[in-house]
Amino acid sequence: AADSNLIRATLFPGDGIGPEIADSVKQVFRAAEVPIEWEEHYVGLEVDPRTQSFLTWESLESVRRNKVGLKGPMATPIGKGHRSLNLTLRKELNLYANVRPCYSLPGYKTRYDDVDLITIRENTEGEYSGLEHQVVRGVVESLKIITRQASLRVAEYAFHYAKAHGRDRVSAIHKANIMQKTDGLFLKCCREVAEKYPDIKYEEVVIDNCCMMLVKNPALFDVLVMPNLYGDIISDLCAGLIGGLGLTPSCNIGEGGIALAEAVHGSAPDIAGKNLANPTALLLSSVTMLRHLELHDKADRIQDAILNTISEGKYRTADLGGSSSTTDFTKAIIDHL
Amino acid sequence: AADSNLIRATLFPGDGIGPEIADSVKQVFRAAEVPIEWEEHYVGLEVDPRTQSFLTWESLESVRRNKVGLKGPMATPIGKGHRSLNLTLRKELNLYANVRPCYSLPGYKTRYDDVDLITIRENTEGEYSGLEHQVVRGVVESLKIITRQASLRVAEYAFHYAKAHGRDRVSAIHKANIMQKTDGLFLKCCREVAEKYPDIKYEEVVIDNCCMMLVKNPALFDVLVMPNLYGDIISDLCAGLIGGLGLTPSCNIGEGGIALAEAVHGSAPDIAGKNLANPTALLLSSVTMLRHLELHDKADRIQDAILNTISEGKYRTADLGGSSSTTDFTKAIIDHL
Ligand SMILES: CC(C)[C@H](C(=O)O)[C@@H](O)C(=O)O
Ligand SMILES: CC(C)[C@H](C(=O)O)[C@@H](O)C(=O)O
Repeated sequence: AADSNLIRATLFPGDGIGPEIADSVKQVFRAAEVPIEWEEHYVGLEVDPRTQSFLTWESLESVRRNKVGLKGPMATPIGKGHRSLNLTLRKELNLYANVRPCYSLPGYKTRYDDVDLITIRENTEGEYSGLEHQVVRGVVESLKIITRQASLRVAEYAFHYAKAHGRDRVSAIHKANIMQKTDGLFLKCCREVAEKYPDIKYEEVVIDNCCMMLVKNPALFDVLVMPNLYGDIISDLCAGLIGGLGLTPSCNIGEGGIALAEAVHGSAPDIAGKNLANPTALLLSSVTMLRHLELHDKADRIQDAILNTISEGKYRTADLGGSSSTTDFTKAIIDHL
Repeated sequence: AADSNLIRATLFPGDGIGPEIADSVKQVFRAAEVPIEWEEHYVGLEVDPRTQSFLTWESLESVRRNKVGLKGPMATPIGKGHRSLNLTLRKELNLYANVRPCYSLPGYKTRYDDVDLITIRENTEGEYSGLEHQVVRGVVESLKIITRQASLRVAEYAFHYAKAHGRDRVSAIHKANIMQKTDGLFLKCCREVAEKYPDIKYEEVVIDNCCMMLVKNPALFDVLVMPNLYGDIISDLCAGLIGGLGLTPSCNIGEGGIALAEAVHGSAPDIAGKNLANPTALLLSSVTMLRHLELHDKADRIQDAILNTISEGKYRTADLGGSSSTTDFTKAIIDHL
């Protein structure tokens, strides 16, 4: 029964703890009266020849049609002859930018209390080309591909994001002192885009130095944009600064205005079905989805309720040192709405 | 005037602050009566056709002959038609492993007080192959090369090091979930070597997860071994945990038993010649050189004097929040001998 006032969004609850944390999002959205109708899709039981993976073609069509979705953790089933679920989504939906806001949670203590970073990762090429071969026995090579098109696209997104969110600095992360042509092209594209945003400071930082500076003083950075592998590394490093992947939202931006928000942590099969999982990363990801839909009031309300619940400290799941169940933590958030 | 009781070692003071911090090492060695005679070599003023870089052939011959050396920072002069000084040394001397012990300095506070790690980096291949080209306009590729020979060699060194230093765990860092063939070969070699060391625990950690765990809890790791680029990134991250590159020693191990210790920080031209530089990284590197020569008494004595001076806190250079000159800090170390 489609309600024309509702926005349709695809939901991939995923595996393991996925359905439990997706449930938490559904409850919170209902309580906050978010005008969203979920279209749920699960990972299939066999390889769909059209996607070459366990993702069904219908589920991809759903994201393409709705242009907005939320994804829980998905463990790729072991075996040959099919593609990783995460990589299939990125490829098939052309999810070219992965955006991860990473900020210290008030009241949740780590070694850092001053983190407020956005990592923007190119999500389609670089070392993730999938092109590898054995040259002779004992000598293998893999190809890192950098294109002008993908570099410009992610750089544009980074500056657009910085401007839209009132951020004043973009740092391009690279290793162009070694990979002059590939990372050099990436930097060239960033510079071209930077010129169109004279109000935003632009700098270039070598990846090794960036990692050292991040652990010494993360406040030195604001928005970071980088090729795929560096983004993989640095976004996890940044998550570590504030407590881990269980606390960091993520959103993938695709061609044609697609936004697929996702929790990037694992599916934690050991605690699945036990009402122990922490839904924070998926909840905060759902907030990035709401912002993408410009439902800022709802986004603010939900984000505040999550942060206040964690900050209050009365209800916390085991991974944060508490003993709350997923459902009690969720109820506490709803009470804070 | 060669004294046959003395061990000859090559010294590259390097540029910028290099000569000042090298002087500090010479003074400390003299005071500690280290039986070493330095053979000093400077970076040349023009490209030596035999090395294709500003390094002279004689200086490389000196390391090959002495098999042991110490290197200050070297900034590669800008311009075309020559190779980077650091990369030339690695290539020409076949410096296949870069070893960086990284431990919290007593009395020097950072966010971490429990760091005690050894990073061992493959130093000759991977993304550092130098093989890059433009496929068509706007599409460039670079080759990452992983060989069985280099992977086995660095893995052997890592396990040998762990055993010799009483360390009980080696973690191989990789991204074989994406680069199955290249990083897969690296892991395969590590596993082969691990089997020969049943007393040493062996584990494999994906690089993104490793970086997250390192910033959350560095005590989770002991010896880390990895391909070139990951080593570049992780060794700097680890340096950041304990205060930066100004405090971390480094030693390069080459074929034929060569050991070239080096300070991996920059040449800091802005403070060069002002008696402000911190010689700690070069001094601690010289200690790794002494250990390589099995001069453990001298190594212990000098290391203790350095750590005690920093711990006491009376004499510290500006980068550590003090106001001592290089020479006063050095004198303080000598007083602690
Ligand atoms: C699971 C893995 C293939 C993936 C990646 O490397 O991109 C993950 O680390 C991530 O960051 O989403
Ligand atoms: C200066 C640069 C080429 C070098 C590297 O990338 O190896 C440096 O970062 C290092 O770690 O020694």
